[in-house]
Amino acid sequence: VAPAQRTSGRSVTSKVVALLDAFTPTEPVLSLNELAAATGLTTSTAHRLANELVEWGGLERGENGGYRIGLRMWEIGALAPRGENLRAVALPVMQDLYEATQASVHLAVRDGTEAFYIEKIHGPRAPRVRSRRGGRLPLHATGVGKVLLAHAPPEVQAAVLADLPRITAYTVTQPGLLRRQLARAVRDGYATTTEEMSLGACSVAVPVRSGPRVVAALGIVVPSLRKDRPRLVAALQVSARGVGRRLGATG
Amino acid sequence: VAPAQRTSGRSVTSKVVALLDAFTPTEPVLSLNELAAATGLTTSTAHRLANELVEWGGLERGENGGYRIGLRMWEIGALAPRGENLRAVALPVMQDLYEATQASVHLAVRDGTEAFYIEKIHGPRAPRVRSRRGGRLPLHATGVGKVLLAHAPPEVQAAVLADLPRITAYTVTQPGLLRRQLARAVRDGYATTTEEMSLGACSVAVPVRSGPRVVAALGIVVPSLRKDRPRLVAALQVSARGVGRRLGATG
Repeated sequence: VAPAQRTSGRSVTSKVVALLDAFTPTEPVLSLNELAAATGLTTSTAHRLANELVEWGGLERGENGGYRIGLRMWEIGALAPRGENLRAVALPVMQDLYEATQASVHLAVRDGTEAFYIEKIHGPRAPRVRSRRGGRLPLHATGVGKVLLAHAPPEVQAAVLADLPRITAYTVTQPGLLRRQLARAVRDGYATTTEEMSLGACSVAVPVRSGPRVVAALGIVVPSLRKDRPRLVAALQVSARGVGRRLGATG
Repeated sequence: VAPAQRTSGRSVTSKVVALLDAFTPTEPVLSLNELAAATGLTTSTAHRLANELVEWGGLERGENGGYRIGLRMWEIGALAPRGENLRAVALPVMQDLYEATQASVHLAVRDGTEAFYIEKIHGPRAPRVRSRRGGRLPLHATGVGKVLLAHAPPEVQAAVLADLPRITAYTVTQPGLLRRQLARAVRDGYATTTEEMSLGACSVAVPVRSGPRVVAALGIVVPSLRKDRPRLVAALQVSARGVGRRLGATG
């Protein structure tokens, strides 16, 4: 299929969505030409759809004529139950965890076959890791990811286990070993990683439950788990219960 | 025009937008039938479009099959320069203001011809007012609104001045008087209201500038401005400068 045909065959919804997807933290303001280039739409289609979104409030025009995400998108996005509400409820608990452990603290939810980081507190003495707020990392190589994967539906587990890319020399890439780790995570109530995502960084994570459902994972990253594991697991479990209880109360 | 014709004549963008608009803080989860009823779309159209949005991540299916706003909307909404970034930068300053004054503190931006409240801290001893985070109030009857209107383009001012609904007995409904107040707000650097939106509540507000541009207004609400105005204006101006400087640094 030629590019022009593919473009004209795209649904309008997919074009609207492509326009919104064009905006990123590093490119929050885009000109019409940049929008067209980023989406593969013609300038006239990009112009028409962008102006419909401006009319609605989902996009705004900036001082220099560039487009940017509008207040209406912020307003609607704030309604995502796994977004702002979860973050607001968890943040004070994460701060307490950070004060108590001086470790980096992570809160993630499962987004398809990836861990999506809702919030992160970086400890100044904690090892450098690749997570960032709003970022995604593989489920099989992170502590929060293993917890989320352990509680995911079988079809999600199967999809992830079918492809376990090696990230460091210590990444678990054998499906059988990972399956045993996931079963242990369910049984013991926590999961760990040892330099599987970033060299020099180990992690331990526990599920956050709203009622019986696992809705998120709370984890911390430290240079080593050798001595501190029981203490860290206990702190995480108390914290995760606090988040879960407050989630039940607010939503 | 018959309803069916009107519906079929709507652009796809407007239908997608109507689906997203159907979700509100009080109705964050909607069934397919509720979505169809809220949007005026047929069930099959609502189903097709909602599933396209689920595929993208802008909507999610909940445990009970209901639709809710998805992580992708939260992620994109957080890019709104006048939303999360402004709120995050202003919130500590607003908390300081609240501690210093025990008044309710408001942060608003202009959304068309209305004031949109980005954040609000309600003082326990402050008068009850009608603002709420994420809510909209008229520009001509609120302190933050008068500041935003005073710095709005002439066509916005003309549109607002053409229709000044009376909200209390003290609302300014004469265009000439409001024009003079707006000119004074620009000259003096602050605007006030006296029971113009809510009886028993007075407000004073100042502009928040990012470089030369007025991007928001910061205001406080108190029972009376008679004694405290100079002190409150000084506190607001220091705070607004702090917000503006930090906005320049982050964005």
